[in-house]
Amino acid sequence: MGNDARAKDIFRSIGHDAARPDAVDKVKGKAKFGADIYQSGMLHARLLGSEYAHARIVSIDTSAAARLPGVKAVVTGEDFPKADMSGIGPWINDNMARGKALYHGQSIAAVAATSARIAEAALELIEVEYEPLSVVTSVAAAIAEDAPILHDHLDAPPSSNVYATDNISEGDIAAGFAQADIILEEDFTVPTAHQGYIEPPACLADYQDGNVSTIWTTTQGHFIVQANVARTLGLEMSQLKVVPTEIGGGFGGKGSPYIEAITLLLSKKAGRPVKCVMSREEVFRRTGPGAAFEGHYRIGVKHDGTLTAFAADFSFESGAFPGAPLHGGMDTIFRCYRIPNVEVNGKAVLTNKPMVRAYRGPGGPQVTLGTEVLMNELAKKLNMDPIVLRQKNAVAEGDPGSAGPFRKIGFEECLQAAAVSEHYQSEVKPGEARALAAAYWHNGGGPSSVVIKMNSDGTANLITGAVDLSGTRTTLAMIAAERLGIGVENIHATVGDTETTGYNFVSGGSRTVNAGGQAVIMAVDDVVRQLGERAASGWNITPDRIEWDCGEAVNPDNGERLSIAAICRKAPYTGGTITGTGSLSVQPDISPSFAVHICDVKVDGDTGQSQITRYTVIQDAGFAVHPKFVEGQLQGGAVQGIGWALNEEYVYNDAGVLENPAFLDYRIPLASDLPMIETVIVEVANPLHPFGVRGVGEAGVVPPLAAVASAITNATGVLMKNLPCSPTNVWQAVNDGGRE
Amino acid sequence: MGNDARAKDIFRSIGHDAARPDAVDKVKGKAKFGADIYQSGMLHARLLGSEYAHARIVSIDTSAAARLPGVKAVVTGEDFPKADMSGIGPWINDNMARGKALYHGQSIAAVAATSARIAEAALELIEVEYEPLSVVTSVAAAIAEDAPILHDHLDAPPSSNVYATDNISEGDIAAGFAQADIILEEDFTVPTAHQGYIEPPACLADYQDGNVSTIWTTTQGHFIVQANVARTLGLEMSQLKVVPTEIGGGFGGKGSPYIEAITLLLSKKAGRPVKCVMSREEVFRRTGPGAAFEGHYRIGVKHDGTLTAFAADFSFESGAFPGAPLHGGMDTIFRCYRIPNVEVNGKAVLTNKPMVRAYRGPGGPQVTLGTEVLMNELAKKLNMDPIVLRQKNAVAEGDPGSAGPFRKIGFEECLQAAAVSEHYQSEVKPGEARALAAAYWHNGGGPSSVVIKMNSDGTANLITGAVDLSGTRTTLAMIAAERLGIGVENIHATVGDTETTGYNFVSGGSRTVNAGGQAVIMAVDDVVRQLGERAASGWNITPDRIEWDCGEAVNPDNGERLSIAAICRKAPYTGGTITGTGSLSVQPDISPSFAVHICDVKVDGDTGQSQITRYTVIQDAGFAVHPKFVEGQLQGGAVQGIGWALNEEYVYNDAGVLENPAFLDYRIPLASDLPMIETVIVEVANPLHPFGVRGVGEAGVVPPLAAVASAITNATGVLMKNLPCSPTNVWQAVNDGGRE
Repeated sequence: MGNDARAKDIFRSIGHDAARPDAVDKVKGKAKFGADIYQSGMLHARLLGSEYAHARIVSIDTSAAARLPGVKAVVTGEDFPKADMSGIGPWINDNMARGKALYHGQSIAAVAATSARIAEAALELIEVEYEPLSVVTSVAAAIAEDAPILHDHLDAPPSSNVYATDNISEGDIAAGFAQADIILEEDFTVPTAHQGYIEPPACLADYQDGNVSTIWTTTQGHFIVQANVARTLGLEMSQLKVVPTEIGGGFGGKGSPYIEAITLLLSKKAGRPVKCVMSREEVFRRTGPGAAFEGHYRIGVKHDGTLTAFAADFSFESGAFPGAPLHGGMDTIFRCYRIPNVEVNGKAVLTNKPMVRAYRGPGGPQVTLGTEVLMNELAKKLNMDPIVLRQKNAVAEGDPGSAGPFRKIGFEECLQAAAVSEHYQSEVKPGEARALAAAYWHNGGGPSSVVIKMNSDGTANLITGAVDLSGTRTTLAMIAAERLGIGVENIHATVGDTETTGYNFVSGGSRTVNAGGQAVIMAVDDVVRQLGERAASGWNITPDRIEWDCGEAVNPDNGERLSIAAICRKAPYTGGTITGTGSLSVQPDISPSFAVHICDVKVDGDTGQSQITRYTVIQDAGFAVHPKFVEGQLQGGAVQGIGWALNEEYVYNDAGVLENPAFLDYRIPLASDLPMIETVIVEVANPLHPFGVRGVGEAGVVPPLAAVASAITNATGVLMKNLPCSPTNVWQAVNDGGRE
Repeated sequence: MGNDARAKDIFRSIGHDAARPDAVDKVKGKAKFGADIYQSGMLHARLLGSEYAHARIVSIDTSAAARLPGVKAVVTGEDFPKADMSGIGPWINDNMARGKALYHGQSIAAVAATSARIAEAALELIEVEYEPLSVVTSVAAAIAEDAPILHDHLDAPPSSNVYATDNISEGDIAAGFAQADIILEEDFTVPTAHQGYIEPPACLADYQDGNVSTIWTTTQGHFIVQANVARTLGLEMSQLKVVPTEIGGGFGGKGSPYIEAITLLLSKKAGRPVKCVMSREEVFRRTGPGAAFEGHYRIGVKHDGTLTAFAADFSFESGAFPGAPLHGGMDTIFRCYRIPNVEVNGKAVLTNKPMVRAYRGPGGPQVTLGTEVLMNELAKKLNMDPIVLRQKNAVAEGDPGSAGPFRKIGFEECLQAAAVSEHYQSEVKPGEARALAAAYWHNGGGPSSVVIKMNSDGTANLITGAVDLSGTRTTLAMIAAERLGIGVENIHATVGDTETTGYNFVSGGSRTVNAGGQAVIMAVDDVVRQLGERAASGWNITPDRIEWDCGEAVNPDNGERLSIAAICRKAPYTGGTITGTGSLSVQPDISPSFAVHICDVKVDGDTGQSQITRYTVIQDAGFAVHPKFVEGQLQGGAVQGIGWALNEEYVYNDAGVLENPAFLDYRIPLASDLPMIETVIVEVANPLHPFGVRGVGEAGVVPPLAAVASAITNATGVLMKNLPCSPTNVWQAVNDGGRE
């Protein structure tokens, strides 16, 4: 429970804190983000957005734009090759509208010019003739009988805007509800919310005819960009090199590309490097936010607190192309609890909005709102401590998980830590209310690759193919240092590009330190094997006889010792530099995290404004390699969830035009809005990782929607079912019974 | 003899020709050379050169320069840390004068400013007070009793400007000459000559306080730059990343750094990236050319053509710091011949000129002039075909080499190829003369490292740490393709930086394809092992049972086949991306090359101008991986040697100021000056290389000085002993008996 002092003591590097190699550069403003890359002769790209949220494109006349002095290339959807969509689907058309515009602001054309100003001027000269179509911006409208079908222009038009459904049926749902003493049934809605990363998408593309083209971009997954752009433009993957820049936040939203293919196509046409940087307005209108959600929940419990049945019927809005987090929602909605009878139906629906993307724990926060708010309401009806109710039903090792029976998990430990926490034990302050919410998150897996190159001074270069969003260069270096037996200051970790590093899946899904860390361990073991061979050869003994102690090879015959630095100094001449590689694919969903959040809130009855007065995150990290980073992840997740709970939402008008595409009107929490987020790091070792690491990035964003809504419910006495709990909505809920 | 059609037929890639990945970019002007790198906020550096060739620096006042608007940093020698010189020597002071200036143009101070123009203006404002000292610009002056000692300002001043000597004594030299029927004895001189690379040194340095600094530079050895600059500035090697750009020629002259440490120090002081690009004048005044040479030769032969004794006493000028090719000279001077009695004494002497650097086959062309001219004179005295004289004495397998007994070598085969060549068999044209010269070159070795990363489309990225001067990316890709059994178009070879790639010694010493190629083979074998494991695991058989056929794994039980592409497509999910590494250190001097050059010349008696009318290079390549590249190397070496023989020389005035620091006055051969250089590639496989590769880069520059001098000797009847054979010198030799 908490940081395990004993476990830390046996490690020199992991479990302690270490400095980030990127810290000084970032503080000084020297770090290179997406917009900071320059090439000589570089052009500037600007994008023309659709005027309509849904319209047939009758014609596009770019001739006047192309004639403007300084304009070097203009492209429209027709310039894209008819790429093979198998395995990727038609939504790669999201790059640029072809035939139809499916949301307001969707790219219609793009211009590359010698300055951004000229490119902007050229956009004004592009004449687009539209045939406007009726617009659907909600699930209800999109599934109505007479709804326009968004993808009716494709070769095999679908019959509906519902592009995917899923179902989980376990036990006998009718019998389960028949066994229940109390049944609650409610509808919940969650609006579209943006990841709110600080750095807008930005890239520089340099097309090389008949050679390897390069894209520098801010991304969570440069290998994904490579595959996607290559497919879109009909290139071999090996003809495209993608170099990730430093990244100013992604939270899932930068897991797949936006502007890279357009920019590379402009570069191809212009024969010069092209840079494209999105504005904040474009970020809101044209990138993929987290999915809006609506769900109908029904839950049954016995008087003793035993859950008997859980049913839900929910929909995610996907925007104009398939991308909704249906799997995340299905997997998360009831996973914290051992419930014998379950019936869940989910669907994913196309609407005239930008295609959603992953947003931290994608689908998890939305579906958990209803489950956890209802758990709190059940506890009240049962007159039972909400932690006790959860403890009665909490899943544990051996219970069914989404990827087979759970191995050792830490939900019970998190609930226990919450129960004994200073926060939960404290009195609720007068005028305030308290609630808690729990969460499960499956945590991702996938391929990771690492190369470790030993320098002749005994230091190591660790090249990971995982973009560093949150300090993972440092964390992976700590793991390497620990395994190698040298100080972490001797490990120089960098992020490699697609050319020099093995395939890595995105930095996302809470997978980077788990999967990447295992690849590091494999690479270190490869290095140590070679170090041993060199030492053994010098001593004229067999390598298996080498003993290692504190990073030194020991000759068992005479106790002679050779440091890693000493072996590396001679390595170029004893067989060449020592380079180790590690590469593996980690199974997803088998190293889950659990969390419990406790929220105190004060609501101003006159204005409806809610003030979070205290907030604690309890979460199982498995093993916290870098406790301060883990704490940061827990706090960051909570703050994003609190923002979604309190204020964040996309506001569309009837024409499907987003009315609040700026941080002034789309309000994310400021530091001054919130108390210090308290954290309790629980460490129940992941049995599938050498050091017990789980992932920590996502579980923290799952509970806050429910924790905050329940706390405001407790403060106001009105059940909060429709987010956000903005002043207007809370005031209306209290005064009018809500906006339903 | 010649291209062995049979050997080529069994290979798909090696032995054929393939396209260079850099060709299109270079033709289009898109390739990035040293001066083509930009960083935002970049400053421009200019260097102040010493006004005197030898002077004490009394004071340097940079205050006015530092005050000039736009100037961001000024450094002098005093700004450099007192670096640990062990293993590198005081000559790292070559970066910038400290205490004394040792040659005209030596860097005294440097300025970084917002434009090159401002930096130039700032140089004018730097006030240096000098105390001029007497100057030595020849070996004779430098070793005179009253000569000023260049390094008298060091802590332990030497007693002489002779900083190194070497001796080879074999047999009984007096007895050897006593056995001789004919003895020839002559003095020969070779002037300083520049490598004449087209691209001047240029770099961009970005200092990062407390983090990894980066230098982009045009270099033959970025690992050497890393080690040297780190040592000079007191950094750990791992705190410095060096990225090699494309390189516009090096020929040994870019094997060690010139401006990188100064530029990084300016960047440190200014807190911004700094670019430094040398002018052509600076290249001549401030970079390291090939060493001037003077030698006294004595050679004895019996009437039957058996050599009995060889004695030589020679000196290399080193310029202001130790760098002369003493080893290359000692090793080469008599190595072609089996001579029982040898006495060679060499020395290296400091003079007030820039420190010499390697120049293609360093030391070889200079020492070979005297040996081969005298062999030709002996043949005339013996009335013997000069090829027959050489055949009588030629070294062969088992004879003593500089690194133990020769393994299989190709000298006899080269002599035989020369004897039967169309050129040698042809009549000498009226008014022309012919001569030939032979050469030995030891060829270098050292560490090479390679990483091969398999892409999911079955193509491979080959990352070599060897700078590509001459097409080695392609050649190494061909070796990888051959070993992997796929087409060379599927191998994408790139040059990695010091961070991502294992240590590689310089691209030089004719070592890159030999050592690098062996590292490639190791890396491919590592990849194939992993490919086999993946295929075996899918088939549920043990990896040792996998058979390989034409790049496909074959299941011996049922004949099922899996292409490399098919294995790689699934690799991320069957254990991760497949990455192989190869790293080794190749012993130098054990895979030597031999060459024979045949030169026809016509001399204009009125002007002394010599016109090469036909020229043939015969050389043992071991195995020509890419015959067109090999041909290019043979031609390039010959042309550089011809230039040195005919026209190239540094002309100094009495004050030690170079008087011809430009290509107008320092004349390198133009295409229109020369006939097409004919080539005969001999292939006597190197028994120490899997494909028989030797090196081919350097041997071709060794014979031309002698071949041309002997041909002109034959044309004029006057022994040519002092290079260059410029019109003036030849006219004087013919009309005045030479300038001796």
